[in-house]
Amino acid sequence: MSKKTSQESGGAKHPVRGGRFARGLAPLMERMNASIHVDKRLAEQDIRASFAHVAMLVATGIISKACGANIERGLKRVAQEIADNTLAYDEALEDIHMHIEARLHHHIGDDALSLHTARSRNDQVATDFRLWCRDAYDQIDKAMARLQACLCRHAETHAETLMPGYTHLQNAQVITLGHHFMAYVFMVGRDRSRVADARRRLNECPLGACALAGTSFAIDRAMTAQALGFAKPMDNAMDAVSDRDFVVDFLSTAALAGVHLSRLAEDMILWSNPSFGFIRLDERWSTGSSIMPQKRNPDAAELVRAESGALAGHLIDGLMVLKALPLAYSKDMQRDKQPTFSAYDSWMQGTQALTGMLDTLHVEQEAMGRAARLGYTNATDAADWLVHNKKMPFRKAHHVVGALVAHAEKEGVTLDELPLATMQALCPDIDEGILAVLAPEKAVRARNSLGGTSPEQVRLAVKRARQMFNLEEQG
Amino acid sequence: MSKKTSQESGGAKHPVRGGRFARGLAPLMERMNASIHVDKRLAEQDIRASFAHVAMLVATGIISKACGANIERGLKRVAQEIADNTLAYDEALEDIHMHIEARLHHHIGDDALSLHTARSRNDQVATDFRLWCRDAYDQIDKAMARLQACLCRHAETHAETLMPGYTHLQNAQVITLGHHFMAYVFMVGRDRSRVADARRRLNECPLGACALAGTSFAIDRAMTAQALGFAKPMDNAMDAVSDRDFVVDFLSTAALAGVHLSRLAEDMILWSNPSFGFIRLDERWSTGSSIMPQKRNPDAAELVRAESGALAGHLIDGLMVLKALPLAYSKDMQRDKQPTFSAYDSWMQGTQALTGMLDTLHVEQEAMGRAARLGYTNATDAADWLVHNKKMPFRKAHHVVGALVAHAEKEGVTLDELPLATMQALCPDIDEGILAVLAPEKAVRARNSLGGTSPEQVRLAVKRARQMFNLEEQG
Amino acid sequence: MSKKTSQESGGAKHPVRGGRFARGLAPLMERMNASIHVDKRLAEQDIRASFAHVAMLVATGIISKACGANIERGLKRVAQEIADNTLAYDEALEDIHMHIEARLHHHIGDDALSLHTARSRNDQVATDFRLWCRDAYDQIDKAMARLQACLCRHAETHAETLMPGYTHLQNAQVITLGHHFMAYVFMVGRDRSRVADARRRLNECPLGACALAGTSFAIDRAMTAQALGFAKPMDNAMDAVSDRDFVVDFLSTAALAGVHLSRLAEDMILWSNPSFGFIRLDERWSTGSSIMPQKRNPDAAELVRAESGALAGHLIDGLMVLKALPLAYSKDMQRDKQPTFSAYDSWMQGTQALTGMLDTLHVEQEAMGRAARLGYTNATDAADWLVHNKKMPFRKAHHVVGALVAHAEKEGVTLDELPLATMQALCPDIDEGILAVLAPEKAVRARNSLGGTSPEQVRLAVKRARQMFNLEEQG
Amino acid sequence: MSKKTSQESGGAKHPVRGGRFARGLAPLMERMNASIHVDKRLAEQDIRASFAHVAMLVATGIISKACGANIERGLKRVAQEIADNTLAYDEALEDIHMHIEARLHHHIGDDALSLHTARSRNDQVATDFRLWCRDAYDQIDKAMARLQACLCRHAETHAETLMPGYTHLQNAQVITLGHHFMAYVFMVGRDRSRVADARRRLNECPLGACALAGTSFAIDRAMTAQALGFAKPMDNAMDAVSDRDFVVDFLSTAALAGVHLSRLAEDMILWSNPSFGFIRLDERWSTGSSIMPQKRNPDAAELVRAESGALAGHLIDGLMVLKALPLAYSKDMQRDKQPTFSAYDSWMQGTQALTGMLDTLHVEQEAMGRAARLGYTNATDAADWLVHNKKMPFRKAHHVVGALVAHAEKEGVTLDELPLATMQALCPDIDEGILAVLAPEKAVRARNSLGGTSPEQVRLAVKRARQMFNLEEQG
Repeated sequence: MSKKTSQESGGAKHPVRGGRFARGLAPLMERMNASIHVDKRLAEQDIRASFAHVAMLVATGIISKACGANIERGLKRVAQEIADNTLAYDEALEDIHMHIEARLHHHIGDDALSLHTARSRNDQVATDFRLWCRDAYDQIDKAMARLQACLCRHAETHAETLMPGYTHLQNAQVITLGHHFMAYVFMVGRDRSRVADARRRLNECPLGACALAGTSFAIDRAMTAQALGFAKPMDNAMDAVSDRDFVVDFLSTAALAGVHLSRLAEDMILWSNPSFGFIRLDERWSTGSSIMPQKRNPDAAELVRAESGALAGHLIDGLMVLKALPLAYSKDMQRDKQPTFSAYDSWMQGTQALTGMLDTLHVEQEAMGRAARLGYTNATDAADWLVHNKKMPFRKAHHVVGALVAHAEKEGVTLDELPLATMQALCPDIDEGILAVLAPEKAVRARNSLGGTSPEQVRLAVKRARQMFNLEEQG
Repeated sequence: MSKKTSQESGGAKHPVRGGRFARGLAPLMERMNASIHVDKRLAEQDIRASFAHVAMLVATGIISKACGANIERGLKRVAQEIADNTLAYDEALEDIHMHIEARLHHHIGDDALSLHTARSRNDQVATDFRLWCRDAYDQIDKAMARLQACLCRHAETHAETLMPGYTHLQNAQVITLGHHFMAYVFMVGRDRSRVADARRRLNECPLGACALAGTSFAIDRAMTAQALGFAKPMDNAMDAVSDRDFVVDFLSTAALAGVHLSRLAEDMILWSNPSFGFIRLDERWSTGSSIMPQKRNPDAAELVRAESGALAGHLIDGLMVLKALPLAYSKDMQRDKQPTFSAYDSWMQGTQALTGMLDTLHVEQEAMGRAARLGYTNATDAADWLVHNKKMPFRKAHHVVGALVAHAEKEGVTLDELPLATMQALCPDIDEGILAVLAPEKAVRARNSLGGTSPEQVRLAVKRARQMFNLEEQG
Repeated sequence: MSKKTSQESGGAKHPVRGGRFARGLAPLMERMNASIHVDKRLAEQDIRASFAHVAMLVATGIISKACGANIERGLKRVAQEIADNTLAYDEALEDIHMHIEARLHHHIGDDALSLHTARSRNDQVATDFRLWCRDAYDQIDKAMARLQACLCRHAETHAETLMPGYTHLQNAQVITLGHHFMAYVFMVGRDRSRVADARRRLNECPLGACALAGTSFAIDRAMTAQALGFAKPMDNAMDAVSDRDFVVDFLSTAALAGVHLSRLAEDMILWSNPSFGFIRLDERWSTGSSIMPQKRNPDAAELVRAESGALAGHLIDGLMVLKALPLAYSKDMQRDKQPTFSAYDSWMQGTQALTGMLDTLHVEQEAMGRAARLGYTNATDAADWLVHNKKMPFRKAHHVVGALVAHAEKEGVTLDELPLATMQALCPDIDEGILAVLAPEKAVRARNSLGGTSPEQVRLAVKRARQMFNLEEQG
Repeated sequence: MSKKTSQESGGAKHPVRGGRFARGLAPLMERMNASIHVDKRLAEQDIRASFAHVAMLVATGIISKACGANIERGLKRVAQEIADNTLAYDEALEDIHMHIEARLHHHIGDDALSLHTARSRNDQVATDFRLWCRDAYDQIDKAMARLQACLCRHAETHAETLMPGYTHLQNAQVITLGHHFMAYVFMVGRDRSRVADARRRLNECPLGACALAGTSFAIDRAMTAQALGFAKPMDNAMDAVSDRDFVVDFLSTAALAGVHLSRLAEDMILWSNPSFGFIRLDERWSTGSSIMPQKRNPDAAELVRAESGALAGHLIDGLMVLKALPLAYSKDMQRDKQPTFSAYDSWMQGTQALTGMLDTLHVEQEAMGRAARLGYTNATDAADWLVHNKKMPFRKAHHVVGALVAHAEKEGVTLDELPLATMQALCPDIDEGILAVLAPEKAVRARNSLGGTSPEQVRLAVKRARQMFNLEEQG
């Protein structure tokens, strides 16, 4: 659209400014005010909501059947143009709502002027954006389920693969790789539960709240709410237009999910480091260097890790915009879409990328097993043996084994390499029975309490998770 | 406790360091490592969890009945000392868990050394802190319900009190004060729903996860979970000790609630400004100035508004601490309590302070009514009249009334002061019937759609809210 | 570029992957890895840095003069294509650096393969991005100076215009509008000083650091640093490639500046509210409503206020990405450009928008003057009179006037409307001399201390500011 | 102080409320309003500022010499009480300013009532807090210099110690440990430069701005500014009382420094992991586990890493509190001290803790050297050799060596273990000269460009840093 048209459209002929203002907007003001480059992503939802609105206007007799039919016909044409990507965008028309209304007018003439009866852009955009967020939750939930399914498959495969379990990133106890993967399955499960809660909470319909006070038209809000799949109309018109809790819920759910993804990514990055050497990322998920010919970098994992910053930043954005805003709607709220769209894209991409990396992951079981033996990971087993077999109070057993480790470390040997006599010198209660519990395979198998690392528990957990989270058991 | 003792206690006699380390901690390290000044707030929960743990150790035969009974007797004594505020705290004993264990040993001797069987501080602190958050949710929920009840009372009283409704802080349409208050009732209602969701999600028991891998003792995790009121044991031991989602859930729920409080506070601050003059805070909620003798400042509202910053900051703290932490437990997680305790205190205080301010609020109805007439707040009513009575499409009516307002503004008069002839010169369709809808009382009564501002809708909303949120109808 | 080419380019023929990898990237990985859609904004800086690099490679004899001349010729062609917007972008080529190198190769053949000698993308992108930030600082500094100049003009015009000065948003003392505007001049002055500091701190050259360790080529880093206007080469190669402090400095400077803009915007929004009625925004900076025909909304001010959230969010993004990143370069750092570019755009737009709004502002002096008399704004003057004329200690005078105000308020009168006898009943020291200081014009003129609100001080401050900040005195 | 006193002091006898208010504060309001538990940390600064103020009041003849002398005598007594920790605190007296004024009155009687002439708490607290921040900067700067000095010592010692240099946490090139440590020296150097800038920017004096408008007393602001070591009085009284930029500057400087500390902490944590085994923390900086007897955890490093979250959170707090606050002072600003004090404590503790850990660090040179050979870290050297000796363009050499690495990896050998014939099969240009550059010691020595990793460059950098940052050359 030409610059001239653009300037005029802000002036006398502008659908909203026309009567009130003699002059158009300053060019910078027009550019700031225009949200079309962002909110065009709501086009489908806007039309869906208009269909529900016009059906209600007809049903309540506020507009005629003929007018309603004409509007519906026109909306279908606009919807098609949007699907075909043939609708032109113009900053002078500000937002997706005005674009669709203007295009409707182009198609069907003055009947289009009745569509905006008993609604305001305030309730309209709130409705559209809730629909969009609901759709987004449904998509991301599926992607997270796929990630869980992938983790469960690995957990099953590696129910007996030994690795060092870390606390403080120090070797703590021997665990199975399956146990480690299952931790993420339940973590992602909480993300999905947050999604379900937030989805339920947003699922009330603001349409019909109008500017902030309701309307004098005898509308039927329950009808539009139902048509759009909402549980009910929102209870208060001011709240309906000035509430952006559903945006903050979205951003906080995404931010925490992003932190979870960053933890899994960190594990991938650490495990790929040559000193660990636990895994090897597939070539299709590795990148090179412009200077160092040998490099195989885990860029995807690093990018996922980094996105947690943007997600937390978007959450702050959402909270800070709302801070101390008096009721009801203020233009500040228009800034809710950028962080939300961006958060969705990050969240989805991160979830899919980790799924892709894991799907093609090579596990270096031998390196994992070697590392599992480092760092006296069987010390707790020695202490537990003293409690089980010698009825020593745990705290005392802990003290005894601490001394054994200090001694072994000084000698540069592992616990099971310490001569029995040396052990007995430190603690006469010890006999050769202790050696049986010091093998990593034994230690792992012994930790068979509910949720423990033993292969049996890991397999049970996989089964439980597949049921709880409704995951398909893929080969 | 003397300095000497403190240095020694980090060394050979330290319950955890004793066997392993030859030397105690550097003084700064000891100070950093000690969390007792913060986590003493978990004392009650720690003892509650130990009671459940010891009962299970006895039931499963891991420790003897006599030993169990002795431990229970000792725990009761420690609990009493904590209640009496006679337990001395010492940084060398690090945290509340070691304090209680050490004191137990003081009371009952070596039976105390068996309490820590089949648990680690990692699962212990996670259990304690979940219990604390659950208790905190229950308290804050009650405080929020009191705020809602107070708002409902005001809404009922002011179901017919006129005021200007704002969008963009510009006078938009006349509304009732009751309508405005009800917006906050539903906003706080969502906060309570977030509390309920987060409470449910945290209500799983990590106890028995031990360090990260479960245990070789044949514990009964379902038994401890049930005894502590948890819905079930957590499913994965690594997740159980390294999950701090429940903290982030707490912080994000608090942060959004804090933003809501800041919005209500902002309304209080604006309305107290002399140019508005809508309300007068009670003297008991007003402060003076050290230099200006006349001042009556709304300090409480300003402080509540400011706390939203701290609450958002705590949320960032929680997210950033967890960012890219590899599994399982790292010491970083110990930094979860400061922001959580601080957030709870802010949230509770802000909720109670606004309740206190509102309980004693003086509303200046006349000033509100005067302001309701400013800014052509009846322009939408004029446009709606054209649609209702002259079948003009809304968008065209909007244009006509925009021109009427521009004209009236130039003349310095209100819409109803424009001569009919002047109106008709701009739009021949207009007749004197339009004057009937221009009175603010009429305009308000007309907005009778569900959730609208009419007195009838406000009274219905109060009734609905009292049922939905289980609020008592107080005089 | 066709999909096929794209797939191949990630494989055997890819300039960086070619030798090392048998396979190309997974499509999602390629999409994530590509930063071209963001970093194409660095094109001009990348070419500038390459010119400096190639000149140095020639001067040190690392490449031949002929080769260097050829590269320079090619770079000029690429630069022209970028200026003409004819360079095609392809995700398979990842980033702007690979695009330019590939295009150079297209133009000049294998001489292009020598350009990347003794540099890595790690030092290259750090150099480019520092150049970009430096340019951005220079632009934003000019825009801030224009805002200051505009505020100074208003301050001069309104050196005697009375208005209420607020603390706690309660009327505090009468001030001049010029005094109020000058507060913002010095606030923005600090933003400019932060820009200057950050600009100076970033002005060191990473080029030649290579991957992280320096290079075995005998390069001359001082030469490239000087050619690009940097103060010196960075001192440590690891730091040079893994430092993103200059990004965080940019984001924190922008975030605080954004908060300042939000404060000025808030004043604009409040003052436009009809109950205040202090200012009227020009039509070109006002917007309408889709439902309420009379609205004149200060959207630009609201949007500027809202952007403070995005700016704070970007800062968190920057900090959180860097949190706990081990040295040296990690891919996470590539996520530094989105928040920086976005912050720059917000900051610039907000600065220009407020300048535009202020340039066209209508001040309603009468309404300001009326409001200046509300709220006993002369109470401090009465107290000061008692100190000056009756030698009463200030704290006692404060107490006396507090009682006078309480009395006047009960009577519904202003201080100067209280009968002298009534005053004397409360404080016998008072005589009619006190009436002289109660007129707002007098009160304002009396506050003539350095930096005070008197017209004389405001005019002095304008003069001082114009010198300090190098502002032109425009009509 | 008894409860009774506390209630009365809020009422008729309250120094600030007395004249104006009939009633005291609600108990919760009094508790919220009281900042004494936080701002008592400003006691020393408050008294310092009062000394300067009273000297000026005497010099300008606003109060008598006798009165001034009496006040000074009284202030000295209060100062002594604070130093002796014998001043009692009472929430009813709100803040440190009222406590000191009340205590002064207790000591010297009604002359104390003149101290608050020509100042307000608004300018008083701004002055005190600036003095506090200035003192804090001076302390933290010293602590950071000690950390730099410690890093320089290590860098000198380990100028030839080989280790793997990482990018993407993948082995990239061999570097020296000294090179790695020096990166942190320059990073901390930027933190110190930020401290210097922020200190300079805050060093203007708000005293005498009074509430917001200046004063009618003929004060000498230059005199108080100079007495307190400020560069000049602040230029605008509104700005002087409502500016909290110096707080945000403090918080942002701390937040970035905290991120730097987190990076160094992360390196410590990674290097302590047994798969790396590069370093061993001293026992005095290691902690144990309550369940695992063998553990040596790097808790201090983890806590420092975690504090970066609190520091970023405090920054958000500071920004968000100021967002959209209209001028001038609002009570929100009182919430500036908690995050600042907390940030200072974190920052100082983190800096000292890392210094302590490093001071006692054991480096495992053998393990570092072994790891330096992993991951084909000499591939770039091979490529550079082809450029230097065979005049191959770099990009082509990169491709050739990439293929060599892929081949070696398949064979499970290092580059220098590849038979020459095999190399020549892939690239006939290669001859046995290449083997000379493949030894890690050679590779490191070759990277001798300015700021590179060679021992010579590291030693030069140490020397440069000691001069630039004014560090003493300790043993």
